[in-house]
Amino acid sequence: MNKIAVEGRSVGVTYDDNGNAHILVWVPLAKDKVELFLPGDNVTLPLQKQDAGYWHLITNQVKPDVIYQFILDGDQKLADPASLFQPDGVHGLSQTFNVNDFAWTDSHWNNLPLNKYIFYELHTGTFTPEGTFEGIEKKLDYLKELGITAIEIMPVAQFPGSRNWGYDGVFPFAVQNSYGGPAGLQKLVNACHQKGLAVVLDVVYNHIGPEGNYLGEFGPYFTDKYKTPWGDAINFDDAWCDAVRQYYVENVLMWFRDFHIDALRMDAVHAIKDMSPKHVLAQMKESVYQLMEVTGRTHHLVIECDLNDVRYINPLDEGGYGIDAQWTDEFHHALRVTAGQEKDGYYSDFKGIADLATAYKNAYVYTGQYSAQRFKTFGTEANENGGQQFVVFSQNHDQVGNRMLGERTSTLHSFEMQKLLAAAVMVSPYLPMLFMGEELSQPNPFLYFVSHGDDTLIEAVRKGRKAEFADFHAEGEAPDPQAVDTFERSKFEWELFEREPHQSMLQYYKALIRLRKQNKVLSSLNRKNIKVFYDEAANTLML
Amino acid sequence: MNKIAVEGRSVGVTYDDNGNAHILVWVPLAKDKVELFLPGDNVTLPLQKQDAGYWHLITNQVKPDVIYQFILDGDQKLADPASLFQPDGVHGLSQTFNVNDFAWTDSHWNNLPLNKYIFYELHTGTFTPEGTFEGIEKKLDYLKELGITAIEIMPVAQFPGSRNWGYDGVFPFAVQNSYGGPAGLQKLVNACHQKGLAVVLDVVYNHIGPEGNYLGEFGPYFTDKYKTPWGDAINFDDAWCDAVRQYYVENVLMWFRDFHIDALRMDAVHAIKDMSPKHVLAQMKESVYQLMEVTGRTHHLVIECDLNDVRYINPLDEGGYGIDAQWTDEFHHALRVTAGQEKDGYYSDFKGIADLATAYKNAYVYTGQYSAQRFKTFGTEANENGGQQFVVFSQNHDQVGNRMLGERTSTLHSFEMQKLLAAAVMVSPYLPMLFMGEELSQPNPFLYFVSHGDDTLIEAVRKGRKAEFADFHAEGEAPDPQAVDTFERSKFEWELFEREPHQSMLQYYKALIRLRKQNKVLSSLNRKNIKVFYDEAANTLML
Repeated sequence: MNKIAVEGRSVGVTYDDNGNAHILVWVPLAKDKVELFLPGDNVTLPLQKQDAGYWHLITNQVKPDVIYQFILDGDQKLADPASLFQPDGVHGLSQTFNVNDFAWTDSHWNNLPLNKYIFYELHTGTFTPEGTFEGIEKKLDYLKELGITAIEIMPVAQFPGSRNWGYDGVFPFAVQNSYGGPAGLQKLVNACHQKGLAVVLDVVYNHIGPEGNYLGEFGPYFTDKYKTPWGDAINFDDAWCDAVRQYYVENVLMWFRDFHIDALRMDAVHAIKDMSPKHVLAQMKESVYQLMEVTGRTHHLVIECDLNDVRYINPLDEGGYGIDAQWTDEFHHALRVTAGQEKDGYYSDFKGIADLATAYKNAYVYTGQYSAQRFKTFGTEANENGGQQFVVFSQNHDQVGNRMLGERTSTLHSFEMQKLLAAAVMVSPYLPMLFMGEELSQPNPFLYFVSHGDDTLIEAVRKGRKAEFADFHAEGEAPDPQAVDTFERSKFEWELFEREPHQSMLQYYKALIRLRKQNKVLSSLNRKNIKVFYDEAANTLML
Repeated sequence: MNKIAVEGRSVGVTYDDNGNAHILVWVPLAKDKVELFLPGDNVTLPLQKQDAGYWHLITNQVKPDVIYQFILDGDQKLADPASLFQPDGVHGLSQTFNVNDFAWTDSHWNNLPLNKYIFYELHTGTFTPEGTFEGIEKKLDYLKELGITAIEIMPVAQFPGSRNWGYDGVFPFAVQNSYGGPAGLQKLVNACHQKGLAVVLDVVYNHIGPEGNYLGEFGPYFTDKYKTPWGDAINFDDAWCDAVRQYYVENVLMWFRDFHIDALRMDAVHAIKDMSPKHVLAQMKESVYQLMEVTGRTHHLVIECDLNDVRYINPLDEGGYGIDAQWTDEFHHALRVTAGQEKDGYYSDFKGIADLATAYKNAYVYTGQYSAQRFKTFGTEANENGGQQFVVFSQNHDQVGNRMLGERTSTLHSFEMQKLLAAAVMVSPYLPMLFMGEELSQPNPFLYFVSHGDDTLIEAVRKGRKAEFADFHAEGEAPDPQAVDTFERSKFEWELFEREPHQSMLQYYKALIRLRKQNKVLSSLNRKNIKVFYDEAANTLML
């Protein structure tokens, strides 16, 4: 594929220093012509055909912050696949946005090394009453006092409606309109850096959401070579894949370069199907290295990956994909079973304290043993990978929200057990992550919610959710994902802040985080020196 | 997965030194019971259930060379998936065979190092009038005099009927009944070793043929995770894959250990879909290393792979799959276009002499450039891989037989051009391969032929073949693959042997091969020192 320039985005609408718009869109399927339409001026601008299915135009007629769309072959009017802003949502037109207009004041900011990260995962829509980036900004002092060092924002790529976890995004470059759009995100990141907080953004490169996905009209963004839980896979290695790979690599670079994001958390990369000689994750990492050389800033790539395969996190020059760190769900599963979680579903493969000890020592619990749940032997050894390559947690949006009733540990365990869970994470030789609200022992659930606009899809999601929990009738009905109430019930309860036992829990978390930061043994993340003793009968473990 | 013992086969029926039969079959889908049935004695023996879906029995009641089958859940009677012999073909019963009964006399034989290999690809059914292993044996003196050092036998795994290239095999462990079965193959290999010839066997691990495939009745040998040209992929990485991997790894080991095969040529491994941390090819290579340690013999793994991805042929300890050598179709394509081949189909990506020069220098022609035929950038550099890792040819069964009329170079090019093609291959820094008959400039075609027993399938194959060549109406009708005549026309014409110009061509080939063996520069395969000059206008190339 063509070398990707790290200095600036190529796809979509970008602006040079003279205010000219550079427009590039990949439409290999266009037979005849591709145009850009400006409804405000009722102007239609023809694009020039280039190599490899790209269409291009440089013009001074397309200003920032104006509404536009593309017209394919004089007929189909569609939003820009690389739109930065969809003011009217996924089915609406695009709006131009000059990423260089924001007056950054974070030139003093240096990204933290990964081993200093203490993640706080939050969902923009439910973290604050406003449900916006601006809302988060008002809570940065609270987070700073808590002691966490990085906020991890669940996906913000434009999704249908205003209520969604974010994994139904259909415009990977557009920042959710209801959260505050791209300008709002830039402002929030700048504010975080002022406070000395790093910003991690959750991005989804393994599928496109089910509503408002028009990518297929432009070109072969998908391939039927592979089956994924969401249908056809994104085309990372089939015919025409070069442009699709470029689209996603440029997405990575944009967040880092134009939004000053410090790290990406890439969703479920095991569902990224790529048998190319160079995996697209490795290509992303190489491009990030090039960007870092140009800007002098540092950026991290973190993945969610359920394969226990060190190829993902090994260095590029050792045949790995060069990813800096990965989520370690197995630590969570072992921890929760140890704490009394019933061994159903994905917990069925975990034995409790013996597996927790393994997770402390080996990071992965499954390093080649037979997994009854997967019906195969599973995993590789991770002995050569440092502690800063693994992110651990006692809960996260998935582990909470994928329960039928979305219960946090707060309603599943005693106050003392919650403290133990928090400590188990915080004294690990790995990178700890909190899920918003756990520090307050919030009792409200974090439920699965959507706000689709398509009735058939709404019904399908409802039915799917009910079917998923068909065996849990005793616990009642699965809440309706489309209902506003389901979303509202999941909102952060700020009024707990000054009440007991929530205040005590908060103090406990603060103390724990302080301890981790100040204690040299805890902050070293040296896995080689860790010794783990456990007593199965007493369900006790000593590090 | 369980460690695979290299000392002996586990699946199917094997014999210990006391004559006891050890029977193992993988039937994870069996609900109730699995039995072995001996029609000769009208005896039914129950197998014991083991871990991971295996069923097992040790008995003295099952002698070698008797007919047997399995009965699943008291109902379904099926041949053994690891049958060594199907005397009545793919739909018939299995026959036991003790691989240790053969009296080998090749203990003096040492496999050649790969750089001494001069391959001669042959098809058992058409190479001799008999169409059997015994027929080949009678021609070994001819081959020895020609000067080649290794015969490469197209696949012999049991296929439907008696006429087939071999890629429709459905019993990977069974040796084609019409060729002479397993005993015939052992005898042929022994005879080759007596003559000082190595034996390469073509094996198919990327799919199972369309007729007589009963594997799915036993267990999940296939997965719908991946789409291949033949439908669902063989299950190398999905749930239950451990046993499927073991089945194929044991197949590799069996040919080497029990049939004294010197090297395998694995068909189209790009269609082996495996995203496991350890690719099944790497697992095979590891097992072969273990076997070699036990036996003290040497064995090579050669692949057909159209990915230009050095990961396949790089050493295991560098993250590669450890494969010794690969077919290099691109050398062929560049060579043939240089010789005047029209640039249609897969030839369209090749420019002639400039690409041939690249193939001499870089092995791969595409090392990252855009391939118009694949609609994407393609390939990696292979600068660190030795010349003995690439097998080159001016024709092979596919390049000849995939033409509608199956023309060899003999009918496409002048006598002088044929000599030039042969020389181009023989002076390359790679491993040369001949396709049976090219040394005689045989004019007869090598056509695509089958002998299916299923009328619907026969019609589908006929139609498919016609559709494939729909654009070639000017050249007449595609020959009927099912017709006996199509097979007969493809037979080796031994009567040419003493006629001109065939005898001259044979002398020329002998001289060329002698030259390659005696000339130190030609036999060194040192790629680093090769210099290539070419003149596009004059269509001339100098090494």
